[in-house]
Order: sequence, then structure tokens, then C-alpha cells
Amino acid sequence: MACSGGADSLALAAAAAFHQRRRSTADGTTGAGRIGAVVVDHQLHPDSEAVTAAALTQLTGLGLDPVISVQARVDPNSTAGPEAAARTARYRAFAQALEQTGAQRILLGHTRDDQAEQVLLGLARGSGTRSLAGIPAVRGPFRRPLLGLTRDETEQICAHAQLSPWQDPANTDPRFLRSRIRTEILPYLKARLSSSITDSLARTAQIAAEDADYLDQAAKARFELLLEDPGAEGQLRMELQALGDEPPAIRRRVIALAVIAAGGATPSYERLTAVENLLHRSGSAGPIELEGGVSAHRGTRGSPDYAKLVIVPRLN
Amino acid sequence: MACSGGADSLALAAAAAFHQRRRSTADGTTGAGRIGAVVVDHQLHPDSEAVTAAALTQLTGLGLDPVISVQARVDPNSTAGPEAAARTARYRAFAQALEQTGAQRILLGHTRDDQAEQVLLGLARGSGTRSLAGIPAVRGPFRRPLLGLTRDETEQICAHAQLSPWQDPANTDPRFLRSRIRTEILPYLKARLSSSITDSLARTAQIAAEDADYLDQAAKARFELLLEDPGAEGQLRMELQALGDEPPAIRRRVIALAVIAAGGATPSYERLTAVENLLHRSGSAGPIELEGGVSAHRGTRGSPDYAKLVIVPRLN
Repeated sequence: MACSGGADSLALAAAAAFHQRRRSTADGTTGAGRIGAVVVDHQLHPDSEAVTAAALTQLTGLGLDPVISVQARVDPNSTAGPEAAARTARYRAFAQALEQTGAQRILLGHTRDDQAEQVLLGLARGSGTRSLAGIPAVRGPFRRPLLGLTRDETEQICAHAQLSPWQDPANTDPRFLRSRIRTEILPYLKARLSSSITDSLARTAQIAAEDADYLDQAAKARFELLLEDPGAEGQLRMELQALGDEPPAIRRRVIALAVIAAGGATPSYERLTAVENLLHRSGSAGPIELEGGVSAHRGTRGSPDYAKLVIVPRLN
Repeated sequence: MACSGGADSLALAAAAAFHQRRRSTADGTTGAGRIGAVVVDHQLHPDSEAVTAAALTQLTGLGLDPVISVQARVDPNSTAGPEAAARTARYRAFAQALEQTGAQRILLGHTRDDQAEQVLLGLARGSGTRSLAGIPAVRGPFRRPLLGLTRDETEQICAHAQLSPWQDPANTDPRFLRSRIRTEILPYLKARLSSSITDSLARTAQIAAEDADYLDQAAKARFELLLEDPGAEGQLRMELQALGDEPPAIRRRVIALAVIAAGGATPSYERLTAVENLLHRSGSAGPIELEGGVSAHRGTRGSPDYAKLVIVPRLN
């Protein structure tokens, strides 16, 4: 399990240690389910060494084993913003911890409040159902068993377990959008829009995750059927007519899958709409430049690609 | 087209009149596309007669024909709240106008701002993808051609066409949640969350509508396959195993369709989850009481309904 020293992940540590103790009492061994902890130290604040040391002591006291710390220096030159840079550093540290300990999974302490915040962030982007699905409970080696608990409840667990959580000042720094959502926007919405807004947002995430999973899978199956054998230059081709006959929800996802298969990034809604407009067979035939150096055009009359949508990969 | 006398629907009237003039110039007739207007008068405020009269004059001046008014008295004893009661009265008036005029369609003046407000209302309920889809552009006889315009743009159209829109005081009455969303919550989110929040919410509605349409259709097809021949008492039965094998997004919708087919109302997420828990074959076999007097239970061992989910219609 990963620990920042905050209430969420210390509560997760307490719960993990409880389960581990109960299981080893039951069968007399710690067996295959041994739970260790990794403290990720971003070294962003002057007392980060002290915070890490305090977390290590508490985790060891709970009986987790091994307990290690990993430095996750944030790239000061990152152009993606300080929150994204910290996230990148954190996930690199997780990969390092997996390798170092031979662990199979990493448990993370995200709560229902984190989920509600994530849905609001997705809503602000307006990028659709997958984005409203928020933080996944299961992805790759990551598991998030606390998505059903509130942040308040993790604080109560810490108090009950006599743990001393650290308050990260970044969590209330209004320069960060997520901190503003946490400390200002969600409390405002609770007072003015709906007293149960956190629950509503978390429920939205759960429904959106199920819907997005189904749609992504249906689109993947259609993409495999629609995709013609790739040409020599790695171009991807699909019949305009067949693609146009797909329902909009699938068509949009199939085009995105083709762009990704050609080495591009997930296209924005605006770029996707531009590609969909190529299917109308009137107006410009493109090319439309897409994220990641990929482009799309409609094969014109006389070309071997006539009546096809062509996705051209980035030239390296 | 329906007109309240406000900027949105007066702008719609101006646009409708423009198209009608252009078409009758082109072919010398007003033909099949003749556009009339209906002013819906809720008689909720002291000057409602004057507002209706002013709207009728302006609509006639634009050349729409026929121009009629319909009274839509709001039921003062409605338990659904004043906004829902006004909506019910309005749609009854629309049905009356369709019958009275023989019109095929009713154009409504909802804008992108209305759409954003509707998405926030859906989000506050947390009831899922269909609810985030907001106001449909096409449903039954209703068409909403202004969903791409902002409210500001409809005011500009009115100014340009020298029309005098009425400001409904209910639109800014903070007792109504929709008015609070319009006058307080959306401006707050624009300042604190994202300057393009209205566009993001409207785009969310569009994506969610496409996704919900696809999912609803896929679920309907599965429901027809899973549903066994109904018994004498009108009970609906589906194999637990087959239903449990469906992906969650489809399973949830199939159960909702069965409840509606049994005469119930669309179940809440919480009730749906309770029915889904019957599929686990452990714990209570029900019955679970659902909206509209319908109930659901799991057929127990020894019964002819063993290993089936049974939806029992309301007894009349």
C-alpha cells in the first residue's frame, strides 16, 4: 500500500494491518497476502523528511512489512503543471516500489471525496462519460478499496487507531484547482445545489464507469471489424459508409481507437467532430491534424482510398 | 412554435419567421411548412394578461400564422413542487395547441444555457448518463433548434429584430433551484471552476445523450431476449444466470425495463442495486418493493421460479 502520511492513506494502512492480523491469526501464517507499505516523498516541502520519518514509524508500528520510502522528485521544468508533475513522479515511484519489493498490487487510499472532486474536474473539461467515471477502483496493479468511505471517516479511523495524520498544505493551496474544488467549490455546491452532492457525484462516477466500460468494449469490437488490412505505410482505412452507419456513440469511439492505433493521443471532442465531418462526403476532404502528429483525410474520387476514411500515422 | 414572451422564444419566433419568409419568396407559397405560434399563459403573475397580449402582437407582427394563446393554469395542490407543476401545465397546453391547430411539431426555445442548467440538475440527482444528457433536441413532436445558442445570443437576436422580450421574475427567484443555478451557481462555477463551464456542460449533455441512446437500445434488445413468456398473472421472469452474465451497464437497464414493463416507474439507483443484489443467490430473496407498486424477488428452491428473477406487477 502507498502512504503519503495523510489521513486517507494512514486509515488504509490501519485497515490493511487489521486484515493482515486477522488472517494470520486464522491460519497461523502471513501467507501470500503479506502487506507492506511505501511512503512516497515528493521532497516538495521543508519538513518532508520529518513527515516521511513519522509515517515510516507509524506504518512499522501497525505491523506492515516491509516498510520503505521512495523519493519521487517532481520535475521542476515540467510543462504539464505542478499537480500533473507530482502525479507523474508518484506513479514512477510506485513502479519502483513494485519492482523493489516484488509486490503484486498497490493499494491506494482515495476516498469518495476524491472521487467527487475528480468527477467535477472531468465535468469542467466536458470530455465525456469516461472522464465522468473518475478514479477507477481497479486499474493495472492499483486497487482503491476506500472509494466508498468519506475523508471524514478516514480521519475517524486514524483517531480510533491513535494515528497522527499529516495535513499536506498543498491540499488547501487555492492555486491548485483540485484544492479549490476541495475547500471551496464542493462546500459551496453542498450549501447551494444539493446537500448530498458528494454522494451524487460519486454515484455518477460509478454509473459512468460501468457505461464507459461497456461502450469502450463495444467500440473495440466494431473497430476490429471495420479496420481494413493496414497498408505498407501503416495507414489505417475504414469504409466511410460502414463507419457512418454506426451509432454516434460507437462511431466517435472507433475513430478515437484508430487515432490511438496510429500512434496519436486520445483526440479532443472538437477534433473528433472534425473527423466525423469528413464522413459527410461534402466539404473539405481534410487532412485534419490530430493530437500526436496523426492526421485524417477522406479518400477522394480516383484514389485507391476512394470512399474511405484514412488515418495517417506520425512520420518518424 | 411555443412562446413565453421571453428572449429565448421570441428569438426563436424571429428565426422561424425569417425562414418562412425566405422559403415563401423562393417558391411563391407558404406550403407545408407554415409556422404558427402558441403563447402559453400560466396566469401566475398579475401582469400575465399584458405579457400574453404583448407576445401575441409581436408574433403576429413577425408574420407567424396562426398566433394563439392557451391558458395553462398551474395546479396549486400539486405535490411535485411549483416548477414541476408549471411544466405539467405547459406540456398539457402544448398538446392542446397541437390538437387545436393540427400542427405536426412544436419548436421550443431552449438554449445552451438551459442545457447547462439541466446537466447540473441531473448531476445533483446523481442518476446517471440519461440524466446528464439533459434536454433532448428531438423528442416526440418537440424540436429544440436553439440548443447551440447562448441566452445572450437570443437577447442579441431580439434587439436586432426590435423585439421586446419579457423578463420572467420566476427566472431569478432564488426559491427555485433552477433559478439559483442560473443566477448564482453557474456564474460561481464560471469564476471558480472553469471559465468555459457552460460549454463543458453542454458538451457533456451531447456526449451523454449519444451514449445513453446507444445503451438504452442495446439494453432493449437484450431485455427482449432475456424475458421469458409472461405468466398468467403478468409476472415477468428472467434467468438469474443469464441476467448476471450481462455487463453491469446493460444489466441495470434491463432490470429497469422489466420494472417499467410491469407498470412501475423508473427505479432509483438505490432500488436497482437492491434488485441486482438478488442475483447473488445469497442473502434475502426479497421481495423488494419498487416505485409504482411493483416488487421483485428471487425464485427459491422448489418453486417453479427457482433461479429466476421475478418482477411482480402492481395489483389493481
